Amino acid sequence: MRNFDETTITNAVIERLAGTSDPRIKQVSEALVRHLHAFVREVRPSQKEWEYGIDFLTRTGHMCDDKRQEFILLSDTLGVSMLVDAINHPVPDGATETTVLGPFFVQAAPEKPNGEDISGPMKGDPMLVTGSVASADGRPLAGAVVDVWHSDDDGYYDVQRLEQIGDLAMRARFRTDADGRFHFWSIKPAAYPIPNDGPVGEMLAAQGRHPWRPAHVHFMISAPGFERLVTHVFVAGDQYLDSDVVFGVKDSLIRAFARCPPGRAPDGRMVTDGYFYLNYDFGLKQLAHGADQA
Amino acid sequence: MRNFDETTITNAVIERLAGTSDPRIKQVSEALVRHLHAFVREVRPSQKEWEYGIDFLTRTGHMCDDKRQEFILLSDTLGVSMLVDAINHPVPDGATETTVLGPFFVQAAPEKPNGEDISGPMKGDPMLVTGSVASADGRPLAGAVVDVWHSDDDGYYDVQRLEQIGDLAMRARFRTDADGRFHFWSIKPAAYPIPNDGPVGEMLAAQGRHPWRPAHVHFMISAPGFERLVTHVFVAGDQYLDSDVVFGVKDSLIRAFARCPPGRAPDGRMVTDGYFYLNYDFGLKQLAHGADQA
Repeated sequence: MRNFDETTITNAVIERLAGTSDPRIKQVSEALVRHLHAFVREVRPSQKEWEYGIDFLTRTGHMCDDKRQEFILLSDTLGVSMLVDAINHPVPDGATETTVLGPFFVQAAPEKPNGEDISGPMKGDPMLVTGSVASADGRPLAGAVVDVWHSDDDGYYDVQRLEQIGDLAMRARFRTDADGRFHFWSIKPAAYPIPNDGPVGEMLAAQGRHPWRPAHVHFMISAPGFERLVTHVFVAGDQYLDSDVVFGVKDSLIRAFARCPPGRAPDGRMVTDGYFYLNYDFGLKQLAHGADQA
Repeated sequence: MRNFDETTITNAVIERLAGTSDPRIKQVSEALVRHLHAFVREVRPSQKEWEYGIDFLTRTGHMCDDKRQEFILLSDTLGVSMLVDAINHPVPDGATETTVLGPFFVQAAPEKPNGEDISGPMKGDPMLVTGSVASADGRPLAGAVVDVWHSDDDGYYDVQRLEQIGDLAMRARFRTDADGRFHFWSIKPAAYPIPNDGPVGEMLAAQGRHPWRPAHVHFMISAPGFERLVTHVFVAGDQYLDSDVVFGVKDSLIRAFARCPPGRAPDGRMVTDGYFYLNYDFGLKQLAHGADQA
């Protein structure tokens, strides 16, 4: 096989994949070649534009380390992450809708008892979060694992300020009680720009796009026999709900974070300052018998 | 804009690009989103497969440094580099066909007088290369700059063995004489596998593909008023001519590297060992008036 031109090269590459033994790798490789070549044939990049593309991807890779994942940001800002999420999570009645994991989840968040204040050294408006976890048909799930994480008042996550604050904060793992309920205190998160000092920020600027996400609290909830739920709850009224840079907002995930006066809070605690209050009732989707987490 | 599903998200992302001021960036961004989403919708990656993709790209980026360009290898092995080359170099009568630049070109190769042996400390079968540079309509071009580079007897380039050999070798820059001719001595290059200890090697293995390129000498030829020519000349009879891992072979670029006995060589030099002899006559394409190098 020789002498390829701009139309014959695509089949030549696909023929070269004939020896791929794993059928899924073969399918994905063939589709990648077809779609990638179709993109190149449509935009007809000059040699200099191709070099820019190589350099953009290289710089994106070099930006990635254990605290920064620039390729996830690229996937998020091109709508690919939410597309993959939509493909994998058709939501049945009663189950909570999903959204992107984002780049700020940490595996080793500390487990805390219900009621704990997880704001650590961070200052901000106090926030009480209460919630419940149930099956999609309404059966409360005791002992479900509830990972939560959110930004501070300035829109930064703990991992972005670890040198200043010294330890993880505004993130923890809780377990639901016998009634399937959990609750904790923290500070109210703010809207924030995704890290935009790298290639993705350069792309957003060239596309005339702002880098902001509306304020939200992340939840990841697991219970045996149920699909792991990865989602956020967004703050109603946030100015970026309709222009989330990662396309993650769904109406069913927006809640008022109600401003409450000092006094006895819904968790029974007496508080001397005003606070914001969020409650969300989560529904998990049952796994098909024998199915594994995707 | 909220509540996207797997079909509505594509237009949502494209609408977000409405503020892109540069029309070319807008065009490329829109096409990228359409083709990338179409690929994702076709292959329906699981969350784990998406994570593998993110990790593959990240490792590809981390593999890149000033001596290794893994994203170019990826582009080459997926046929994208030759596709971009084909788009940019429709070849008129009389001009030499082009092929990929490859990752082993070095800007700072030393300029050498015609006739020089550029093999440096490398051992191998002696090779004489003679050639001419002319316009596509046959007018000899004096003073054209001819960059050449090739692999050694084992298939390695100097930059891959720089710690062992200490300096650049098997690469140089020549200028054509008054008749548009150049010539030099070196050693005959061998076929070689592209570097396959990274993500691209992993991909080739999964696709059941060998990583070999047929033996060749690289040429990059520039003359004022002409399109810069980037090409190779391949060794006739090489076992990989029909399965070049980067799809770069064209029949018009294959030449016998003729085995010659000791005696007076075509450049007038008396040689006591047998040698291989390559001659190639290159044709350059005239630039449109006022056009710049692509």
